[in-house]
Amino acid sequence: MSKRIVGPEIEKLIQLLAKVPGLGPRSARRAALHLIKKKEQLLGPLTVAMGDALEKVRVCSRCGNIDTVDPCMICSDPRRDAATIILVEDVSDLWALERAGAMNAQFHVLGGTLSPLDGVGPDDLNIRGLVSRVAEGGVTEVIIAVNATVEGQTTAHYVTDQLADMNVKITRLAHGVPVGGELDYLDEGTLTAALRSRTAF
Amino acid sequence: MSKRIVGPEIEKLIQLLAKVPGLGPRSARRAALHLIKKKEQLLGPLTVAMGDALEKVRVCSRCGNIDTVDPCMICSDPRRDAATIILVEDVSDLWALERAGAMNAQFHVLGGTLSPLDGVGPDDLNIRGLVSRVAEGGVTEVIIAVNATVEGQTTAHYVTDQLADMNVKITRLAHGVPVGGELDYLDEGTLTAALRSRTAF
Ligand SMILES: [Zn+2]
Ligand SMILES: [Zn+2]
Repeated sequence: MSKRIVGPEIEKLIQLLAKVPGLGPRSARRAALHLIKKKEQLLGPLTVAMGDALEKVRVCSRCGNIDTVDPCMICSDPRRDAATIILVEDVSDLWALERAGAMNAQFHVLGGTLSPLDGVGPDDLNIRGLVSRVAEGGVTEVIIAVNATVEGQTTAHYVTDQLADMNVKITRLAHGVPVGGELDYLDEGTLTAALRSRTAF
Repeated sequence: MSKRIVGPEIEKLIQLLAKVPGLGPRSARRAALHLIKKKEQLLGPLTVAMGDALEKVRVCSRCGNIDTVDPCMICSDPRRDAATIILVEDVSDLWALERAGAMNAQFHVLGGTLSPLDGVGPDDLNIRGLVSRVAEGGVTEVIIAVNATVEGQTTAHYVTDQLADMNVKITRLAHGVPVGGELDYLDEGTLTAALRSRTAF
């Protein structure tokens, strides 16, 4: 607030909440007020949970996932297919694929995409870690599940080159019509891809 | 997440973030991930700010505002016009009016509206506190700035009755066309009120 009508502690809380994705300045004020009103039920427990996360959360040294243990729960789960690695840009993509629950594979998180203009080169991504994991042996397939953007596809090509001499199958997600998606909202590239990859009915 | 793929600490953090107004389950996941990634810049400072709020924020015993001091900064500001009290439902309304900066008056926060169906009676609202403040003397005007809802107006009438025998002027916010508002989006009640209260051009 331009005019100081609340103590600096509340002001600070609002400012920081406004940096949380999904909350702007206006909703940060509303969120702060709600948190303060629900001191016992929400503000207290959330403060504890954030302190816990602050203390315990770490990046998995094997796959780049985020968890409270290292290696993460996915890397250390013996029931997962260790021969298949799904390569994603970000932990949020890993979570999304896990929610879909389509595969019981391992993951590898790149931490972004190649973007020379933004100064993001191969060494800024977790590519070397992937090559090491494949080099260790036992991996038969890497499924490239990066975003279907220009940067994502550039990165996919670079990774494919790095793995070219290794005895591993490299696949990527199918393009097509999203389930429940309406055709006339889709771009021509998607429609063309969906037609070319058509399957028997 | 239905399937446990992150430690219980992160799960808990996501669950609690989902209860913050403005964040749903999906944005809570995104927010949690962002907070974890920005450990030093955001998660740490926000945890501290929330701990501070938890410890220091209290309800002003005089007006019902929320602040880190009691009486609040507004109540204890000698430059404010102590003869005028603006009556609002909620602290968020107080903040909104303060941001508008239209008046340098005192406030009084009711903490809701009368709502017999929800079991909210006069004693559940901060009405007695308002009557005491007026009874102390020195207050010449109470501006009723409750919402223009049925509950708000019922509450306004009840408060007016309580103050009827006291030597204080009771006013309310003008109805009219919102500044920048388009007429054909406004309801008939607002348009009628705006016409009746028309002013010289
Ligand atoms: Zn891992
Ligand atoms: Zn106060």
